Amino acid sequence: MPYFISGVPADYKELIARTPEEFRKLNDVEIFTRHRVIDIDPERQRLRVVDLEGNREFTTEYTVLLVSTGAKAFVPPVDGVTLNGCFTLRKLSDSIAIKTYLRERKPRRAVIVGAGPIGMEMCESFRTIGLEVSVVEMAPQVMPMIDEDMAGEVQSRLELEGVNCMLGQGLEGIEGDSSGAARRVVTTGGNVECDIVLLGIGVRPSVDTAAAAGVQLGTRGAIKVDRMLRTNVPNIYAAGDCATTTHKLTGEETWIPLGSTSRKQGRLAADNMFGATLEFPGVQGTSVVKCFDLTVGRTGLNESGARDAGFEPVSITMEAETLHEYMPVRGNMALKLVADKATGRLLGAQVVGEMTALADKRLDILAVAIGAGLNANDVKYLDLAYAPPYSTAIDVPIIAGNLMTGKLYGKECSCGPHGLE
Amino acid sequence: MPYFISGVPADYKELIARTPEEFRKLNDVEIFTRHRVIDIDPERQRLRVVDLEGNREFTTEYTVLLVSTGAKAFVPPVDGVTLNGCFTLRKLSDSIAIKTYLRERKPRRAVIVGAGPIGMEMCESFRTIGLEVSVVEMAPQVMPMIDEDMAGEVQSRLELEGVNCMLGQGLEGIEGDSSGAARRVVTTGGNVECDIVLLGIGVRPSVDTAAAAGVQLGTRGAIKVDRMLRTNVPNIYAAGDCATTTHKLTGEETWIPLGSTSRKQGRLAADNMFGATLEFPGVQGTSVVKCFDLTVGRTGLNESGARDAGFEPVSITMEAETLHEYMPVRGNMALKLVADKATGRLLGAQVVGEMTALADKRLDILAVAIGAGLNANDVKYLDLAYAPPYSTAIDVPIIAGNLMTGKLYGKECSCGPHGLE
Repeated sequence: MPYFISGVPADYKELIARTPEEFRKLNDVEIFTRHRVIDIDPERQRLRVVDLEGNREFTTEYTVLLVSTGAKAFVPPVDGVTLNGCFTLRKLSDSIAIKTYLRERKPRRAVIVGAGPIGMEMCESFRTIGLEVSVVEMAPQVMPMIDEDMAGEVQSRLELEGVNCMLGQGLEGIEGDSSGAARRVVTTGGNVECDIVLLGIGVRPSVDTAAAAGVQLGTRGAIKVDRMLRTNVPNIYAAGDCATTTHKLTGEETWIPLGSTSRKQGRLAADNMFGATLEFPGVQGTSVVKCFDLTVGRTGLNESGARDAGFEPVSITMEAETLHEYMPVRGNMALKLVADKATGRLLGAQVVGEMTALADKRLDILAVAIGAGLNANDVKYLDLAYAPPYSTAIDVPIIAGNLMTGKLYGKECSCGPHGLE
Repeated sequence: MPYFISGVPADYKELIARTPEEFRKLNDVEIFTRHRVIDIDPERQRLRVVDLEGNREFTTEYTVLLVSTGAKAFVPPVDGVTLNGCFTLRKLSDSIAIKTYLRERKPRRAVIVGAGPIGMEMCESFRTIGLEVSVVEMAPQVMPMIDEDMAGEVQSRLELEGVNCMLGQGLEGIEGDSSGAARRVVTTGGNVECDIVLLGIGVRPSVDTAAAAGVQLGTRGAIKVDRMLRTNVPNIYAAGDCATTTHKLTGEETWIPLGSTSRKQGRLAADNMFGATLEFPGVQGTSVVKCFDLTVGRTGLNESGARDAGFEPVSITMEAETLHEYMPVRGNMALKLVADKATGRLLGAQVVGEMTALADKRLDILAVAIGAGLNANDVKYLDLAYAPPYSTAIDVPIIAGNLMTGKLYGKECSCGPHGLE
């Protein structure tokens, strides 16, 4: 949606993966849009539904029910969040509303509250269409999903692109003008004038109807499910952003709402609802965000997460060009790798790189290694595809393995004139 | 070197990873270029060495010896291979000789014998600088490293680029003109006129001096080593293209000479020669070649290789766009995945894709999964980094996992209007 707001695609319809008509025609599935389930009766396996257009209520029965109510944008309890020009960005309708506001009111100054993924994407989006942009973030760094030592480069890039970063500042409220339009964001560190405000400070699971029916909640208030995605209530499953899952590295219940996870869980829940007994293995929180020309991503645990989970983390940080010096188009990336001191097991990775460095794919390579339980020594010997148009003779993850084993086991790393290959 | 021949880089010196002077200065290592070891005496741990410039012989002692003599281009025993204008491409000096011949003789018509990696890269190189190109290949397909069903697209692309593919034809000889220059390649299927010939039909390990000293040879005549890269002779190690290794999937001794493997083995051998006890885990034959705008790669076993190794292979083939339809720059790729019917374990993958599809990195993701012993079900749930600039919500390897589990366990795959996501 941030890309749609700045023009790609031009038509919001391209963002709709499948329309109700396509569902009906291709999958023989009936979709009720603009309907809300207002009550689940688990005893009689009945739903009470409101047709939001006709205001008609009716009852329907289920044999098996999937709750896939997703998550909703968090709106902080401060003054001014309902002013005109103050938006969240979660639903397609949000992005259409923002686009309409941009077209009709022609705001010049944007304030983005929250320097997480949505905030970062919206920095690029708003700058692309020529707005002045300030970002207000409570943490002392941008992109709190990565460690502070990795986030510095992202902040520098934001500033290079003309974004005003207001870090370590909490939102106190938004003030409007006489027409009821947002004009000033008030923070613990001062005020900033604006014509449009985007609140990008996270989401909360949408669970009210399920919870009222006795469906048990778990961590972060998300619906508690087992590995088969069953809730505590017979014949009720939950999947996607409204549900908990297991963290592969900590073994703990976690809630990391991501579209990639939802897609996998949706398939699995459907199979199980029709008789299969598949188990979802959990997640490791792999995610990536494009911020101007930078790719920022992470997978697994960062240092503090590793410590919280009872590991003793060891980390290495490196920079590398991903192609040989003589290749015309190549890019630079930074990688941080975290491993467990006692076992050498890989716990997490973070990347910040230029788009041409394909840091997201190097992250994916490490994500598979981390998910498979590989250790630092295994990564030294990954058999990856090499030819000069694609990588250096040993690619970034392998170099990281060399550095990590050097740090873990006290060996020096031999460094040539071409860096850490 | 194929890229150097067509102009990138312009200077061959950029292809030298480290010069003797850099070795001396940075690593305190003395390099003797233009010297040949003509005898190894393992009893007295002595080498007899010839200085090829001064024709001086001398003797030197070793505490521990690494044989890293690499491989040499195979030249078939047919007439005409020593004619002017008939080349192999293995050493930097080969590429300089080809470049010199191109500049001085201005050949117009090239024949490449062998449609493997070097042959494919040289097709692009010779076409880039404007030569007419024919490829003679004994197999009925180009790129015998991938299965025939995947190779068809590569052949189509070659033909689109104006390359004349002469498949299923064996080399019988090369005929020259009165000046001793190659002018005609004679094959089992007919003759083809030419001004330059490139023999790209494989390499053989360089082992003569080591073998004469009693070093045992293994598969394909390469030096037999254990996982610590020790030969049968005390204090003699071997690494790289001259040595055998273990295939991770078959557990058998194998010989797959690749620069990426050599780099890893070189480090390991050096560590072990100085007291470490590291073990090289083996290879799975991951490789990639750029052929015009196509990326062609493989890892692990193909169907016939899997059958030879005692598996019952099941395979799926798919095509996918790697980004959502609304993203302006995206690419198409084909993927073939091979798994073991009994266990679901992944055995191999092959890709053919446009450069923008980053098929090599999707191959790497699967290479890590295959090397880690994952099965088809595990791949369905890989936690990969998703955002619209980088992939679809579930990326190609995951889609392949969905298709493979469908095929293995008899479930239908739900396909929407956007393909196999």
